Amino acid sequence: MRIVVNGLGEMGASLALAIKNGQENAEIIGVDLNVKTLQRAKEIGLADEVNTDLFAVAPTADVIILATPIHIIIDSLHKLSHADLKSTVLITDTGSTKKQVMDAADELIKNGTSFVGGHAMAGTAKAGIDALDAHLYDSAPYFLVSENQADLDRLRNLLSSLHLNFVETTAKKHDEMMAMLSDLPHIVAASLVNASSLTLANHPELPQYAAGGFKDTTRIGGADPQMWTDILQTNRDATLEAIELYQQQIDTLKQALINNNSTEIFDFFAASKQTRMTMEEDF
Amino acid sequence: MRIVVNGLGEMGASLALAIKNGQENAEIIGVDLNVKTLQRAKEIGLADEVNTDLFAVAPTADVIILATPIHIIIDSLHKLSHADLKSTVLITDTGSTKKQVMDAADELIKNGTSFVGGHAMAGTAKAGIDALDAHLYDSAPYFLVSENQADLDRLRNLLSSLHLNFVETTAKKHDEMMAMLSDLPHIVAASLVNASSLTLANHPELPQYAAGGFKDTTRIGGADPQMWTDILQTNRDATLEAIELYQQQIDTLKQALINNNSTEIFDFFAASKQTRMTMEEDF
Repeated sequence: MRIVVNGLGEMGASLALAIKNGQENAEIIGVDLNVKTLQRAKEIGLADEVNTDLFAVAPTADVIILATPIHIIIDSLHKLSHADLKSTVLITDTGSTKKQVMDAADELIKNGTSFVGGHAMAGTAKAGIDALDAHLYDSAPYFLVSENQADLDRLRNLLSSLHLNFVETTAKKHDEMMAMLSDLPHIVAASLVNASSLTLANHPELPQYAAGGFKDTTRIGGADPQMWTDILQTNRDATLEAIELYQQQIDTLKQALINNNSTEIFDFFAASKQTRMTMEEDF
Repeated sequence: MRIVVNGLGEMGASLALAIKNGQENAEIIGVDLNVKTLQRAKEIGLADEVNTDLFAVAPTADVIILATPIHIIIDSLHKLSHADLKSTVLITDTGSTKKQVMDAADELIKNGTSFVGGHAMAGTAKAGIDALDAHLYDSAPYFLVSENQADLDRLRNLLSSLHLNFVETTAKKHDEMMAMLSDLPHIVAASLVNASSLTLANHPELPQYAAGGFKDTTRIGGADPQMWTDILQTNRDATLEAIELYQQQIDTLKQALINNNSTEIFDFFAASKQTRMTMEEDF
């Protein structure tokens, strides 16, 4: 089984390695624009073949995994719909947003090609092939989006050795949940860091006094700017809705504080405590 | 040396125990409205004497440590300025905001009583005497506010066995830093939890898919509502300023996303990443 993995970053390389370890007959064709990454993929035995051009190897693929930044996944899907592919090929992706990816796959799917949108809630702050970890996906929720049960089953079967927690959902539900669980927290954390940089200018000693609360709340403010530009732009509507909801909350608390209304301030934090405790039971 | 500690919660009880362990001649008089807390303080040998009334024991005190919620600290300071105290008494507090506390201590200080505002960057999510930990303060930054060097030295000496990282500062600087390092992060986290509770209603499975980013960013959204009402109300001006700065940042990102301006989105996250990395060096 020839499995083409386009993009050997942390997610793509880890997924390729986990599949290779779990599937005896898996032949990995690693594709990346970075020649050093390809050399490394050969050296460590991750890839059986390498190429810098997805479309040079796509025609012979049984499976194509698109693991690049999302805007490139979208571009690749459009181009693949005009490529000469095996009629039995299964295409999937690893992008963090699904609506725009599913829209881009529409032509392929209409042509009868099997496509399943995929997204694992896994990954670290690291990046690149050297961040690869065959156990990165262990127990991770793995969202699957397709209206075709046979295609869903083929992908589940391909990834069966990875100990994933598969979640079949729709692109819309996925993106709404991600806007709240992932996109908004990154915006919130980065905004807090950027706001604090103004105070930092007046009080350079500020970070020395940071306790766990500040450190935890700002941690993902250090995330990769290019990746988050890509994610937010491809999940714009759901993220803007989440920002609106969030701004209303900030404003509610601000008004309560302006009015010095202790009951409203208390209720705001009491509601948060209650919800956080309820959520924690399911974390 | 008779040391009265008013309020045997996590902070007061831990401070009392650390002083008792470090100072041979320290006699701890524990004061709390909760009789069970006082019984427990006697049982574990934390307090040599106990009382429910600060003003019954204040006249014999060499040191008075006010470790209650801030609005009670403020009330106690006003009342102590009319109490019959030893002329040599040293009074201090453990409140998380300092401007209103220092204002409340003004009359006492004008009468010639020694008062030093204090605040340790220590504490956990736990509360009450059972959260007591003699090492809670180890290496913690401990802010001291007073214009009288002799009083500052007396307090440093009293707490010398606690391995604290003393920081002499002004109430204004302290409160500005706390607004950004502590008050705003709590508002940000609680607002994120409250915003997510609306999405949670539509997607009850949401918490199962939460990754580290959401968990970390919302962690302090579970903080004690009463304590945070108290802290925000006594640091209102600095907190409102921090909220304003923060709202501008959220709005900057929102506008960039509305305009689909990838350069502005990238710059926003790039600035955050840069600042977060710089801060991390001093954490």
